[in-house]
Amino acid sequence: MTQHLFDEATRVTAGDSCWRGRTSDDYWAFVGPFGGATAATILRALIDHPQRSGDPLSVTVNFCAPIAPGDFDLDVRLVKANRSTQHWCVELMQGGAEVATLATAVFAERRPSWSHQPTELPQAAPFDQIRPFPKIKASWANQYDFRFVGGDPDFSGAKKDAPASAFSKIWIGDRVPRKIDLLSLMAMSDAFFGRIFHVRGELVPFGTVSLTTYFHADAADLAAEDVSRVLATADANIFHKSYGDQTGKLWSPGGRLLATTTQIAYFKA
Amino acid sequence: MTQHLFDEATRVTAGDSCWRGRTSDDYWAFVGPFGGATAATILRALIDHPQRSGDPLSVTVNFCAPIAPGDFDLDVRLVKANRSTQHWCVELMQGGAEVATLATAVFAERRPSWSHQPTELPQAAPFDQIRPFPKIKASWANQYDFRFVGGDPDFSGAKKDAPASAFSKIWIGDRVPRKIDLLSLMAMSDAFFGRIFHVRGELVPFGTVSLTTYFHADAADLAAEDVSRVLATADANIFHKSYGDQTGKLWSPGGRLLATTTQIAYFKA
Repeated sequence: MTQHLFDEATRVTAGDSCWRGRTSDDYWAFVGPFGGATAATILRALIDHPQRSGDPLSVTVNFCAPIAPGDFDLDVRLVKANRSTQHWCVELMQGGAEVATLATAVFAERRPSWSHQPTELPQAAPFDQIRPFPKIKASWANQYDFRFVGGDPDFSGAKKDAPASAFSKIWIGDRVPRKIDLLSLMAMSDAFFGRIFHVRGELVPFGTVSLTTYFHADAADLAAEDVSRVLATADANIFHKSYGDQTGKLWSPGGRLLATTTQIAYFKA
Repeated sequence: MTQHLFDEATRVTAGDSCWRGRTSDDYWAFVGPFGGATAATILRALIDHPQRSGDPLSVTVNFCAPIAPGDFDLDVRLVKANRSTQHWCVELMQGGAEVATLATAVFAERRPSWSHQPTELPQAAPFDQIRPFPKIKASWANQYDFRFVGGDPDFSGAKKDAPASAFSKIWIGDRVPRKIDLLSLMAMSDAFFGRIFHVRGELVPFGTVSLTTYFHADAADLAAEDVSRVLATADANIFHKSYGDQTGKLWSPGGRLLATTTQIAYFKA
């Protein structure tokens, strides 16, 4: 069986505290690898780690410097383990001691509890009834099948009287369908176009600085959903002094909230 | 001049990579220090650090284990510095090598840019027209002057037909007024009552696992606001398998979005 490009792109080779990975041309953004692929690679090293127990609950990835094409080391450290949670710290390094990405993660063995989901699945036309977003220059984006339900981007740069909405509602699946797991959910939580592109209606220099994703489904929940796409929403609260935020939610088609995410990003405008 | 209790509670003594702090009985929660005070103490060590440049942009605090009353060490490490950003990692330790809190922070020298704040200040009755929330058992909460504009908590435990709303709108100030700075903003971003208390209408075992706060104002912006309270909103998306999330926004009375925050917390219900 041929491996999915996503699994190829996020492959890691096992070490004890030091793991290895390699950037993928298939998930390349403008000046470095797609941050979602980097985050998923880090998460894969943690999930595959022999000391890991439980499922990812929270992952924060701080993008410290551009990652050059090629190999990188992952220094993986279990900082603290309790009865039901684990706290990890990962440093992605290139060229010896230069840290390019700094991540922390919390894993938890999630026990049954009272359940309640106040947030409701947004209304959306079915995936099959929406035209796929056309291919663009960044290779990573072409690995996904984006179908905009609302807030389609207009990057024409046409001057507008007022900023456009920062809100988008999108179906996201892998272009070559792949069952959604915690790794692809991690990557998809960073797969929104920069909110600054939407409000400005043009592409400007942009880079995510810090990304935090919470998983609201564990591996068993996600396997039971058995889906190959998510309905996702993204929005922004503010753009100020060269940094703007983004909030996002990722849903199973059946209405389960799978993950929430937030990030802060640099922009030049 | 007598020092404000908050400054006393978040005091640190300088080291090179290792700083020291001490828990405060004045900011105590049920089984450990108020997480917001811990976060602010970590942030103070970073702000006071001789190598620091710029202002905090993003802070993530992972609460790994309860902090015992008394002294703690802060292992502060500048992981990566670029021209305009710094990436820090802080480990709070007690009893030698036991890590109780793991934090990362991004500092940035924020340059002027295009500004846009899509999110609007929520409507709220003025602070002076609302009765302060009564004192409760947790000492930290009594250091704040909470005035609920909406979503007042009812912890009576009276059985309800359906879960109550997770949304709250509150004025938050220090009980002894203190000008809002980046430190108190950090602490206040963790000063909401657990969302699970609101939806269940009762106090249940609860603990924040990971907290992320983004600052949308730098020190100069905040000094210019010159305010001693914020209008804040908090909400939740989901409670599932013993963990629930929280999102929050903190505004200056004049309508500037100062910070956004999110956290994931353990609960037993």
